[in-house]
Amino acid sequence: MRFEVLILGCGSALPTLERNPGGQVVNLHEQLYLLDCGEGTQHELRKHKIKIQRIDHIFISHLHGDHFFGLIGLVSTLNLLGRQKELTIYAPSGLKQILSVQLEASDSYLRFPLHFVETSPKKGKTLLFENKTTEIYSIPLKHRIDCTGFLVSEKPAERKINPEAIKLYNIPRYMLAKIKAGENFTAESGEVITNEKLTYPADSPRSYAYCSDTAYYPELTSHIKQVDVLYHEATFLETLKDRAKQTFHSTAKDAASIAKGAAVKKLILGHYSARYKDLNPFLEEAKEIFENTELGYDGKLITL
Amino acid sequence: MRFEVLILGCGSALPTLERNPGGQVVNLHEQLYLLDCGEGTQHELRKHKIKIQRIDHIFISHLHGDHFFGLIGLVSTLNLLGRQKELTIYAPSGLKQILSVQLEASDSYLRFPLHFVETSPKKGKTLLFENKTTEIYSIPLKHRIDCTGFLVSEKPAERKINPEAIKLYNIPRYMLAKIKAGENFTAESGEVITNEKLTYPADSPRSYAYCSDTAYYPELTSHIKQVDVLYHEATFLETLKDRAKQTFHSTAKDAASIAKGAAVKKLILGHYSARYKDLNPFLEEAKEIFENTELGYDGKLITL
Repeated sequence: MRFEVLILGCGSALPTLERNPGGQVVNLHEQLYLLDCGEGTQHELRKHKIKIQRIDHIFISHLHGDHFFGLIGLVSTLNLLGRQKELTIYAPSGLKQILSVQLEASDSYLRFPLHFVETSPKKGKTLLFENKTTEIYSIPLKHRIDCTGFLVSEKPAERKINPEAIKLYNIPRYMLAKIKAGENFTAESGEVITNEKLTYPADSPRSYAYCSDTAYYPELTSHIKQVDVLYHEATFLETLKDRAKQTFHSTAKDAASIAKGAAVKKLILGHYSARYKDLNPFLEEAKEIFENTELGYDGKLITL
Repeated sequence: MRFEVLILGCGSALPTLERNPGGQVVNLHEQLYLLDCGEGTQHELRKHKIKIQRIDHIFISHLHGDHFFGLIGLVSTLNLLGRQKELTIYAPSGLKQILSVQLEASDSYLRFPLHFVETSPKKGKTLLFENKTTEIYSIPLKHRIDCTGFLVSEKPAERKINPEAIKLYNIPRYMLAKIKAGENFTAESGEVITNEKLTYPADSPRSYAYCSDTAYYPELTSHIKQVDVLYHEATFLETLKDRAKQTFHSTAKDAASIAKGAAVKKLILGHYSARYKDLNPFLEEAKEIFENTELGYDGKLITL
C-alpha cells in the first residue's frame, strides 16, 4: 500500500525563486492529506498533477504566512470547481476568521461544508483524524507562536494468510478473517494449529513525522520514536545558532540531534533560510550526528 | 521618459499553469505602481527582477481573490526585508481588515506605515494619487461586487527648448524655465519672440487604462477617451455572452466595442477564462470591431 510524501515547498518565511513556502502532500493508502499550505501551493499541486478534490483533510502547523497564505486560494478554487464534499482543516485558532473575512469581502459562499478542528501544542500529542488504516496526530513543537507538528501513522495491519498452510490444514473459509486477526485454529480432532503456522507477519506499520517550525526541542523525541521518516526544519547552520534560538528555529545539527534522540530511520531537512544558496553544508552538518539524512527540496518524493 | 506596463498575470478566477491571476506593474518615469496582486504576484515580481521595495503604491481593483490573495504575502515579504517607508494601498473597503487579521494571527507587526485609501465605483472618476508628472484615477467598472479600474496618466509636460533658437536670439539663462513653461521672450529692443520660435512642442501626455473585471459598460468610455493603451478584460468569447452577462464579465467583442467607443490607440485583452487554451479566437473576435488589438499574456511588456 502506498505511503508517499511529496514536498511542494522547502523554503521559509522569505520565499525565493528556488524554494516555495511550506506545503507537502501525503498519499497514504490512496488518501491525500495536505500538510501546510503556503502561497502558491495550489500552483504546485497543479504542476505535480495532484487531483486537488481528493484532498479532504488539510493540516496547518501554525499561522505564520509561509504555512497558510495559500489556503484561501486553494479553498476558493475547490469551490469554483464545484466541490460539494466536506473539507476539514486542522489548525490553530484564528484561521477560521481569516478565511471567512476573505470570503465575505468577495461576497462568496462555499458550496461545501468547511469544518475546523482547533489544534494547540498545549494539548500534547492529540489524535486529530483516524480511519480504518490511518491515524494522524498533532504533536507539540516549540515556536514563537503556537505550532504543532503532525505524525501520520499506519495502524497495525492484519497478518497475511499463508495459502499453502491453509490448504495443508484444511482450514474452512469462514475462519479466514479470524485467522488474519491472529486467532489459532482448533481442528475437529482437538489439535490446535497456531496462528504462526497459518500466517505471515503483517508489514510493520509505517509512520511519518512533519516538524515544520521549531526551536531545538528534545521533548519532541518522545512523540516521534523510531518513525520511518522525520521531516525536521533546519532553518540555519550552526554558525547562526544564536539567530536560530532568537527566532525559535533549528539548525541542521539540532534537527540531526532530534533524529538521533528519537532513533528515527531517516531524516529529511527543510525550511532553509533564504540566505542559503548551497545546501550541502546542511547535509554535512547533519550527517556528523545522524548519518541517514537527506536534503529536502521542492518536488522531492519520499517513499516510505 | 519611461512608460511601461509589465503583465504578471492574465488569468481569471481559476488559475491555470499557463496564466497567473491578476497583477501588473506600471513603470512611469521610474516610479513603480502595482495594479492588482493575485496569489503568486510576489513570485512573478521576483522572476522579472522587479525591485519590490521600489513599489510605494498598490492599487487593488476589487476583492475577488484572483486580484488580492497575493497582497498579504507581498506585504509580509516587504516587512521581512526591513522596509521602513510608507506603503499606500488603494482598495475597496474590507481589505484593511483582511490584512490585519492575518498579521495579528501571526503575531506580526509591520515596521513601516501602511496607509489605506478606500476606493469605490460610486465615487465616479476619482483622483487617487498625483506627483509632479503623474496622475492615477480610479474609474467605475460594473461588476458583481464594487470594482474600479485605474487610469494612469502623465501630466502635460513642459515644452522642449530649441537650443539653436536660444543661441540665435541670445536668450539669457534665467529665462529658460519660464520659456519651457510657455512664456514668450521680450528683448531689450522691445521685440517679442514668441514661444513657438524658441521651443518644440512637448510630447503628448500618455495614458494607460486598466479595466480588470467588468460587464460590458459603455459609460466607461467617457473616462478613457483616446488613451494610448486600454487593457480590458475579455473573460469569454461571444459564444458565451450569456455567461458573460450573468457573471458581470465581458467578451472579446465587448472589450473591442469599448475600445472603439473610446477611440483608444491600442487595446490589450486579458483575464481569459481558464476554459480557453487557444486565445487566437479572442484576437480575431476583437479585431473585427477594433483592429489595433493585441493579446495580453503573462510576461508581456507594453511600452507606451
